[in-house]
Amino acid sequence: MSNTSRQGTDRATRLARAAKVSGNSGKLVSPDRATALLESIIEPGDRVTIEGDNQKQADFLAKALAKADPARLHDLHMVQSVLALPDHLAVFERGIANRLDFAFAGPQSRKLAELVSNGTVKIGAIHTYLELYARMLVDLSPRVALIVADKADRDGNLYTGPNTEDTPTIAEAAAFRGGIVVAQVNEVVDGLPRVDIPGDWVDFVVPGPKPYAIEPLFTRDPAKVRDENVLMAMMAIAAVYEPYQVRRLNHGIGYATAAIELLLPTFAAQRGLKGKVANHFVLNPHPTLIPAIEAGFVDNVYCFGSELGMEQYLAKRAGVFPVGADGSLRSNRALAQVAGQYACDMFVGATLQIDPQGNSSTATKGRITGFGGAPNMGADARGRRHDSPTWLCAGEEAGDALRGRKLVVQMVQTHQPNGAPSFVERLDAYDLASSAGFARPPIMIYGDDVTHVITEKGVANLLRCRTPQERETALRAVAGDTEFGQRQSTDASEGLRRRGIVMLPSDLGIDVKTATRDLLAARTIDDLVTASGGLYAPPAKFRSSTAQA
Amino acid sequence: MSNTSRQGTDRATRLARAAKVSGNSGKLVSPDRATALLESIIEPGDRVTIEGDNQKQADFLAKALAKADPARLHDLHMVQSVLALPDHLAVFERGIANRLDFAFAGPQSRKLAELVSNGTVKIGAIHTYLELYARMLVDLSPRVALIVADKADRDGNLYTGPNTEDTPTIAEAAAFRGGIVVAQVNEVVDGLPRVDIPGDWVDFVVPGPKPYAIEPLFTRDPAKVRDENVLMAMMAIAAVYEPYQVRRLNHGIGYATAAIELLLPTFAAQRGLKGKVANHFVLNPHPTLIPAIEAGFVDNVYCFGSELGMEQYLAKRAGVFPVGADGSLRSNRALAQVAGQYACDMFVGATLQIDPQGNSSTATKGRITGFGGAPNMGADARGRRHDSPTWLCAGEEAGDALRGRKLVVQMVQTHQPNGAPSFVERLDAYDLASSAGFARPPIMIYGDDVTHVITEKGVANLLRCRTPQERETALRAVAGDTEFGQRQSTDASEGLRRRGIVMLPSDLGIDVKTATRDLLAARTIDDLVTASGGLYAPPAKFRSSTAQA
Repeated sequence: MSNTSRQGTDRATRLARAAKVSGNSGKLVSPDRATALLESIIEPGDRVTIEGDNQKQADFLAKALAKADPARLHDLHMVQSVLALPDHLAVFERGIANRLDFAFAGPQSRKLAELVSNGTVKIGAIHTYLELYARMLVDLSPRVALIVADKADRDGNLYTGPNTEDTPTIAEAAAFRGGIVVAQVNEVVDGLPRVDIPGDWVDFVVPGPKPYAIEPLFTRDPAKVRDENVLMAMMAIAAVYEPYQVRRLNHGIGYATAAIELLLPTFAAQRGLKGKVANHFVLNPHPTLIPAIEAGFVDNVYCFGSELGMEQYLAKRAGVFPVGADGSLRSNRALAQVAGQYACDMFVGATLQIDPQGNSSTATKGRITGFGGAPNMGADARGRRHDSPTWLCAGEEAGDALRGRKLVVQMVQTHQPNGAPSFVERLDAYDLASSAGFARPPIMIYGDDVTHVITEKGVANLLRCRTPQERETALRAVAGDTEFGQRQSTDASEGLRRRGIVMLPSDLGIDVKTATRDLLAARTIDDLVTASGGLYAPPAKFRSSTAQA
Repeated sequence: MSNTSRQGTDRATRLARAAKVSGNSGKLVSPDRATALLESIIEPGDRVTIEGDNQKQADFLAKALAKADPARLHDLHMVQSVLALPDHLAVFERGIANRLDFAFAGPQSRKLAELVSNGTVKIGAIHTYLELYARMLVDLSPRVALIVADKADRDGNLYTGPNTEDTPTIAEAAAFRGGIVVAQVNEVVDGLPRVDIPGDWVDFVVPGPKPYAIEPLFTRDPAKVRDENVLMAMMAIAAVYEPYQVRRLNHGIGYATAAIELLLPTFAAQRGLKGKVANHFVLNPHPTLIPAIEAGFVDNVYCFGSELGMEQYLAKRAGVFPVGADGSLRSNRALAQVAGQYACDMFVGATLQIDPQGNSSTATKGRITGFGGAPNMGADARGRRHDSPTWLCAGEEAGDALRGRKLVVQMVQTHQPNGAPSFVERLDAYDLASSAGFARPPIMIYGDDVTHVITEKGVANLLRCRTPQERETALRAVAGDTEFGQRQSTDASEGLRRRGIVMLPSDLGIDVKTATRDLLAARTIDDLVTASGGLYAPPAKFRSSTAQA
């Protein structure tokens, strides 16, 4: 069988080698033997996955792999969601690995671009999360999976705590393809709060010398929400949430969407929208969602991961979040991506660049950022067959008699914080494609999937555009004083405004003077703590930021 | 909180009621108390899911629910993948349930249409499988889930055997939303072969009085593959698999795709395609795949479910299938749908009706069949960002400079076995939509997602069509002597043939006279058993069918 030879020696041979390293002491392996363990179970050319998404990280195992002897381990093909840690790149720099398939490289995007351009890293493709998991099951199955959990028992059963995230999917992909699964855990205990990953799927447990790394990436300090964010959030509510009656939705991260969350109990409630919009979220437990939850605005939230400091609040609002009988959240990134794709009527996100056809990208010169989950949720699932008033309404506006449309909203200020225009004639993604050798430019969301673009100037409703020229005109009309916007006469914009394709704040009944932070249901981290009944415990860096505010 | 009141009383109250019924004997509940248990944990108006997909069924729990007292349990909202058993409809006929959200109703499609038309059942929507799971996590979360597994231990840990299917997803959706999970099992044992569902997620275990119902739906007897199927399979290989070098794919069920599987080691091998096509399947373990696997054609197969009789063969070919350390398959319908959507370059399926724009549907008068998984896999995932030669080639043919395309192939004879034409001017789906009150017609695969239509007359490549008129002409050219085909002159077809949009067998180097059963790598069920080295153990009904052949 061709596939057997390609996969290196079998599991039994590798486990026999590992038994010598671990001293036959069952599944537990001492952390000082971690690198030796990996050298015994991994073979040159193997596909290896290191758990690491945009929250928790199997950081100790990543470090242990980066310390391996390149004479023993080389030509590895890394398949992993996120490149977040220096050790994720060290395996390439040290000659242990040379191929990479991944989804996101936020913190390491500049370094990654360097390593690609000097030939140290050969990228297979940039994926969305869901797409990468799919390939782990089909043509990129990992021979060895290095995962991370809160606690293990001696049988290898794992408790992930609320940040379950990718662990079940990665473990399943490896354990049921003859792979070997190694888990880094914070502690080994006799009784777990609950089992998230059955011990039968786990071969080795390594207690990490310190708790695994985890980042509170979904905390937005209300003190940093600016008046422009408030204005854009008001426009989003008035131009999209309200007319389409959006009940099931997913928010990207950023201050614009944080502002929407904080305006639900105030501005949206004043417009009579309570119970009519934003009932069901697919979203991490954003602290900025607390006031809306406490106001009874939100029925429930399904989560990709969790958020540090939200543990006690989640337990109190177990009816709102996916909380188990043990009282803690179980998130699931794969299922949440499915939920975002198939059970949401709207995705709201942000971007760095938009071109004349509405294509958007976060790729900029010298950085290979990746996509994460946005492309998966930022498009109508063509396999969707159930309808909803929102979906039907969007489809009708687009002139589609056979099916509805998902709302895909891009919120972007006309200029980025560094002054660069957000609207451009040509995306940097094209240059990146040539320099990195990609067959197609890494576009995050395709223009024909975008339905609304919101800037501080106004809203462009692309559903109502019937030609590429109209789309372009609509986008230039909201691009403000960028070069992109100034190429167009005010007359052209006014024509679209009369047809409801372009909406200015005044067209939406919004007095720009009222768009201030005063409208926010919480203006500081402390306000969020208060709204939570004292249950939200912000991480230290946000507590100090509040003190400064 | 509005959501608390809507969800009925809480889990603790329900479990306290259940404790009285089960006699406090832990999680185990005697089968003769099953209906009483359900009456204690379910409340009027609850959303309830009964596990039942197109293979295994929680049949005993379905019967127990159907026996409930409608004075105690009424107005239930059933959320379930498949309506397969009479008891699935009995809950509506007896006034226990009145609302339904589902994905497939093959065996009960006629009866379901009757119950909808007389007002007994109100359908929310027809979904694909993946879409229904997504909604179980967001806005259709089940208050009570009735699931099924092979074995349980006294702690409620479950072993599903190879037909894992929907169980993990349904259990997770209920257990982590304050729901109650009840599992029907074939036996209670002290040690499980492996844990598929942790006992922490399971509240009650009911040993069924007999093994749960399961159907070998994916077994196609090679003796029933006809010469026409062979011809169409040859065209599929020559017109699609070969030129696009399709390595990752999903097959629907039917004799045409069974014929493709049986032609891989013969016709495809003769064309030099071994190792170049059909390397990675997302597919149930079809027995007709055995010869191709034994010929080394197939690297691996990821599975939605399993297939009866394949157990020993799967254990032998553990490198090909998702088999655990215990030696048995773990399938996963949700992950396989994700894999089919995101990691496959081609979907090949069949249908009952195709209209002039290539829209296809299995809906016919008086039957509400549903979709299953076809719509999810029969479209390009717009969130896909990785490329492959197949995907890029299809995108280029379609004239798309920004992205590739998934190949979506419909294989259909010009007439159905009952003589009805497969090509029609208007789909029955439109009439069904009006009579059942659906906002949109239940189209299985939209015409603009279909890339190739193959009949016994030829192949229409819709990727090369640039206008709706061209698509229509291409479809009429392969519609044979149906009224639909006869409306078009031979000249129009010849024009498209010269441009490679329409291909006849001779254009593909196929001599129709050679298209016979002699080309099949296995011609009987016995041949499959032999190819498996005696490990495939066909269910009784296929053994008798072979004897007749």
